[in-house]
Amino acid sequence: LEQEQFDPLQTLLNEFPPKQLALMLEAMPPAERKQLWELIPETLSAETLTFLHDEVRNSLIAEMPAEALAAAAEQMEVIDLAYIMEDLPAPVRQTLEESLPDDILEHLENTLSFEEGSAGRLMSTDVISVRSDVSLGVVKRYLHLHEDLPDYTDGLMVADRDGIYQGKLLLNRVLTGDDEDLVQDVMNSQHKPILATASEHDIALFFEQSHFVSTAVVDENNRLLGRISLDYVIAILKAEADHALLGRAGLDEEADLFAPVLNSARRRTVWLAINLVTAFLAAWVIGLYADTLEKIVALAVLMPIVASMGGIAGSQTLTLTIRGLALDQISSGNKAWLARKEVLIGIINGLLWALVVSGVAWLWFRDSGISLVIGAAIVVNLVAAAAAGIAIPLILQRLRIDPALSGAVILTTVTDVVGFMSFLGLATQFLV
Amino acid sequence: LEQEQFDPLQTLLNEFPPKQLALMLEAMPPAERKQLWELIPETLSAETLTFLHDEVRNSLIAEMPAEALAAAAEQMEVIDLAYIMEDLPAPVRQTLEESLPDDILEHLENTLSFEEGSAGRLMSTDVISVRSDVSLGVVKRYLHLHEDLPDYTDGLMVADRDGIYQGKLLLNRVLTGDDEDLVQDVMNSQHKPILATASEHDIALFFEQSHFVSTAVVDENNRLLGRISLDYVIAILKAEADHALLGRAGLDEEADLFAPVLNSARRRTVWLAINLVTAFLAAWVIGLYADTLEKIVALAVLMPIVASMGGIAGSQTLTLTIRGLALDQISSGNKAWLARKEVLIGIINGLLWALVVSGVAWLWFRDSGISLVIGAAIVVNLVAAAAAGIAIPLILQRLRIDPALSGAVILTTVTDVVGFMSFLGLATQFLV
Repeated sequence: LEQEQFDPLQTLLNEFPPKQLALMLEAMPPAERKQLWELIPETLSAETLTFLHDEVRNSLIAEMPAEALAAAAEQMEVIDLAYIMEDLPAPVRQTLEESLPDDILEHLENTLSFEEGSAGRLMSTDVISVRSDVSLGVVKRYLHLHEDLPDYTDGLMVADRDGIYQGKLLLNRVLTGDDEDLVQDVMNSQHKPILATASEHDIALFFEQSHFVSTAVVDENNRLLGRISLDYVIAILKAEADHALLGRAGLDEEADLFAPVLNSARRRTVWLAINLVTAFLAAWVIGLYADTLEKIVALAVLMPIVASMGGIAGSQTLTLTIRGLALDQISSGNKAWLARKEVLIGIINGLLWALVVSGVAWLWFRDSGISLVIGAAIVVNLVAAAAAGIAIPLILQRLRIDPALSGAVILTTVTDVVGFMSFLGLATQFLV
Repeated sequence: LEQEQFDPLQTLLNEFPPKQLALMLEAMPPAERKQLWELIPETLSAETLTFLHDEVRNSLIAEMPAEALAAAAEQMEVIDLAYIMEDLPAPVRQTLEESLPDDILEHLENTLSFEEGSAGRLMSTDVISVRSDVSLGVVKRYLHLHEDLPDYTDGLMVADRDGIYQGKLLLNRVLTGDDEDLVQDVMNSQHKPILATASEHDIALFFEQSHFVSTAVVDENNRLLGRISLDYVIAILKAEADHALLGRAGLDEEADLFAPVLNSARRRTVWLAINLVTAFLAAWVIGLYADTLEKIVALAVLMPIVASMGGIAGSQTLTLTIRGLALDQISSGNKAWLARKEVLIGIINGLLWALVVSGVAWLWFRDSGISLVIGAAIVVNLVAAAAAGIAIPLILQRLRIDPALSGAVILTTVTDVVGFMSFLGLATQFLV
C-alpha cells in the first residue's frame, strides 16, 4: 500500500460495518494487519476492537498510543471494556483507568466485581423499570417520552421502591391492555429473573427453556441489577461450539490462524507432548513382543489395522456417550443397560469385521494362524473399545474433567494398548 | 410398573413440560419407553412428539392407533406436522391426511411446497400486518382488540393492499410514537425481509448480523408470507453443532443412543468400512518394507510413533483451517502465506520433537542409526502433516464436500502413509 492511496481507501473503510472490519483484520498476516488498522477511522475503531479475537486485539492494542486507546475505551460499552481491560498489562490498564470519566469508571468497577462469564458481567444496565401500582396509562405516557427503547426490549421490569424485582410487564400487554389496568394486574410474575452469579451455560439453558427475549438479572436479595437478552445466547452457543471444535485438537480460542509462527508452535506443543506419551506407551507394548515380531514379520504389517479399527469404533461410542451426557440422557438408571448395548454392538461389529479382516489377511499371507489371531484380536479390541467409550466419559465426568476435551486421547491409548497387546499376545501364545 | 400405580403416575406426568417428557423418553430403553409413552396424557402427546429425535418419534408413531395419531396431528403446529409427515410411511400419511380438517390440510400442503430446512418451511404464518397509510392510533386500537400477541413479536409487518412487504413497525415505535403519526413515517423500511427459499445457514447468518427478534419471510415478488424469529436461530445453531460433533465420528442425527442394537450396528458400519480401507493402505505400505522389518525389529516397535505424531500435528492444522474457512477468514490472497506459516510451524515442531523422540529411541535401543532415521522421519511427517492440514480442506471445499466431516480420515491416511514410508524408507536406505 502506498502513501497516496490512503485517502480514498479510508473513505471506503468508513462504509464497512465494524464486524466486517474485524473479520478482515483477522484474515491478514500481522504486517498487513497493522497497516490496515492504522487506516481504520477512529470512529469505528472502538467497535471493531470489540469484535476481534483476543490475541489479534491484544496485538493491536499493544501498539496503540495511550490517547487513542482512551478515546476508543470511552466509546465502548462497559461490558466490552471490562472484557478487554482484564487482558491489558497492569501499567496500560492503570493509565487507561486514570483517563476514563468517573461515571464510566464506576460502572466499570461495578461490572468487574462480577466473575468473567457470569450474568452480572454480561448484563446490560440499560433497563427501564416501573412500579407495580401505576396504571398502564401512566406507563404509556412514560414510554412516550422515550425516543426509542434499547434493542431486544420485549418488556419493562417491575420493581418496588427498594428495587426488588417483582415481575415483567410485556410490551404486548401494554398494547393490548386498558389504560386503567394496573401494572400489578397485567404483569407476568412467573417471568423468573436470573441470578447475577449464573454461568454462561445456565444463561443459555434458561433462555432455551423459556420463550423470553430478555430477562431480569438480580442479586441474591432479588434486587434488580440489569437485564440480559436472547442475543447473548447465540454468542454463548457459538463460543461453546468453537471451544469444542478447537478443544478436540488440543487448541484454545486464543489460537490465531494468523499468529506469529513461534507463538503458534509453542501453543501446539503441549498437545503433541501428551500424545507422544501415549505413542510411546503403545511402542512399549509392541516392544514386549519384539521376539514374536522378529519371527513373523506379517504381524508388524497387520498390527496397525487392529489398533485403528478399535480407535474408530471406540470413538463412535465415546461421541454418543458424551452427547448423551450433554443432553442429560444418561442416568444411573440406564447406565448398565447402555453399557450392555454398546458391548453387544461391539461384539456384532467385531465379528463382522473380524471376518472381513481375516479374509483379506488370508488372501495376503495365506496363513490361517495369522488370520485366526487377527480375527480374535479385532473382536477383543472392538469390545474393549465399546466398554472404554462408555466408561471413560462417565469416569471423567465424575472427576469433573470435560470428557469432550480429553476423552479421545485416553480412548486412543486404551484401543492402541489393547489392540497391540491382544494381537501380538495371541500370536505369541499360538503362533510361535 | 404395575397396573395400579398408573393413575397417580399419570397425574404426575400431567405436570411435566412436554420437552422434559421427550428427554425422559429418549433416555429410556425401548421397552420402558413404550410403557411410559402409553401413560402420557393425550393432551401432552402432540407437543411431546415434536420434541423427540426422529428415530425415537418414528418408533412411537409406528405403534400409535390411527385416531390417536390424527388427534395429535391436529394439535400440532403445522411446521412441526410438516416435518413429521415426511418421515411417515405412505399409507399412514394418507390415512392421516384424510382425517385432517381442510384448513389444516391446505396450510400443510402450502408448507410442504417449500424445501425442508428453508425459511418457507420454518416460518410461522401467525403474522399481524398493517397498512402503511394508517395512523399509530388506529394500530393501537387494533392491537387493543387482541388478547395477546404471538411469542417473539417485536413488531408488526407492514404490507400494501397486494400483500407486498414494505417494512416493519417495531412495537417500541408504536409505544414511543404519537397517535397521529402515520405508520409509513415511523416504520423501519431498512428492516430487510428474508426469502422463503433461504437456507438454515442463511437464516442464522441473517439474525447474527442484524439485531432483529423476528423478520418477515417473503417470496421472490416480495409478497409477505410469514415471519421467522430469533429462537429458530438457537435451534439451528444447536443442530449444526450436533451435526458437526456426530459427523466427525461418522454418525448422523438419527443416531439414537437407545436404538435397537442391530440398527445401531448397521449405522456405524459404513464408517468402519471407510477406515478399514485406510488401515489396509497403511498396512500395504508397511508390507513394502517387510524385509527391512525382519532385519531390524526395533523399527516395528517405533513406527507407530512417527505416524501418530504426524496425525496429531496435522489435525491441529486441519482444525484451524476448517475453522478459518467457516469464519470466512481464508481467501486466495492469504492462502500462500498461511501454507508457508503452517509448514514453518511443522519444521519447528518437527525439529523439536525429532530431538525428543531420537533421544528416547537412543536411550531405548542404543542405536544411533535408528535415532537419526526416526528423527528425520518425524520432521518429514510433521511438514507433510502441516501441508496436508491446509491443502485437504481447501481441496474438499472446492469439490463441495464438507471438510469437517471427511477431512480427518483423509488426513490420517496421508500422515500414516507418509509416516510409515518415510521412516521405513529411510531405514531401508541407510540402515540395511
